[in-house]
Amino acid sequence: MSTGTSTPRARGPRPAGEDTRAAILAAAQAEFAERGFDATSVRAVARRAGVDPGLVRHYFGTKGDLFTVLNELPGLPGEFLGRLFDAGLDGAGRRIVALFFSLWDAPAGRQKIRALIAAASSRELEGAGLAEFIAAEVTGAIAPRLTGPQQQLRAELIASNVVGLALARYVLQLEPLASASEEEVAAWLAPNLQRLIDGGP
Amino acid sequence: MSTGTSTPRARGPRPAGEDTRAAILAAAQAEFAERGFDATSVRAVARRAGVDPGLVRHYFGTKGDLFTVLNELPGLPGEFLGRLFDAGLDGAGRRIVALFFSLWDAPAGRQKIRALIAAASSRELEGAGLAEFIAAEVTGAIAPRLTGPQQQLRAELIASNVVGLALARYVLQLEPLASASEEEVAAWLAPNLQRLIDGGP
Repeated sequence: MSTGTSTPRARGPRPAGEDTRAAILAAAQAEFAERGFDATSVRAVARRAGVDPGLVRHYFGTKGDLFTVLNELPGLPGEFLGRLFDAGLDGAGRRIVALFFSLWDAPAGRQKIRALIAAASSRELEGAGLAEFIAAEVTGAIAPRLTGPQQQLRAELIASNVVGLALARYVLQLEPLASASEEEVAAWLAPNLQRLIDGGP
Repeated sequence: MSTGTSTPRARGPRPAGEDTRAAILAAAQAEFAERGFDATSVRAVARRAGVDPGLVRHYFGTKGDLFTVLNELPGLPGEFLGRLFDAGLDGAGRRIVALFFSLWDAPAGRQKIRALIAAASSRELEGAGLAEFIAAEVTGAIAPRLTGPQQQLRAELIASNVVGLALARYVLQLEPLASASEEEVAAWLAPNLQRLIDGGP
């Protein structure tokens, strides 16, 4: 009997590539569902998947990035926060509107954001910790970049404006808002977002 | 054989009270589901329920009120618009926040708004015309009370701010926003709403 390459693998290391990716995603989904976002670690995901933690980081980056990919969220938090704030706070309100349109306004993006809002509302993602994810990776990452009082509250109000716009434009499809151009939406919304960013009166 | 009071009614008029109310609601639900909000009339609901249109108005008021009751929406549109705008545009941003808290912040209200957002997101209410209802009875009724450019768009952005706040506070329950007092929320949100109301720069 041959012990060559056709022997089914049993206890050997997993092959690189798609199988490993899939095993890591399955492990992450199980961990997030059992423990929520905060209590899940890359190390625990790696252990469950039977791979080295470095491999999880190699394929997916941070825990937040893993959650993003797993839930098909539009854009990695680190990336989009960089696009918003690395150029400073001036004009960040307008850049939030630009980012909103670039992430979600194409048909595929509209479908994703509708699915995400439906999942959040039906609490499908509750066990997997969508709110914890937002707190840790989105509003929790925006808040320290702000100055002035109540930074976390203001970051959450910014997020609520963005989510409300998505709901009105893509889910309820209220007209003329649903067909308004980026410039028309920005003309009204960007100064309000900027006020929350600046923390001014 | 007696023809007295115990005879089951067949073609006679329906009795007043709960049976009539229930028949009108069932007829309205069927009409809204078949035709959507805009194409449904009080007259058609009455015909389907086998009652006089005056009786529908007596029990429920307008078509919008009927939709409100049927979908357990919090508050009749006419009533709450009066509370917002009858005292003028000054301070209306703050009154919107006050209305939000009075309608939705009690536990029963939180449950209703969560159910409403879930239904809107899962498109359960699409056939029944939630978007048409909002356009006709909420944003369509706010817009003419505003002055300046793009009144309908601004009314929809106001509505989107309110819906976004409900989603962040009651569905995602982001902290500290979920536990913030009415005054804390109003301090940041009311000036932004007022800017949309005033149409100013």
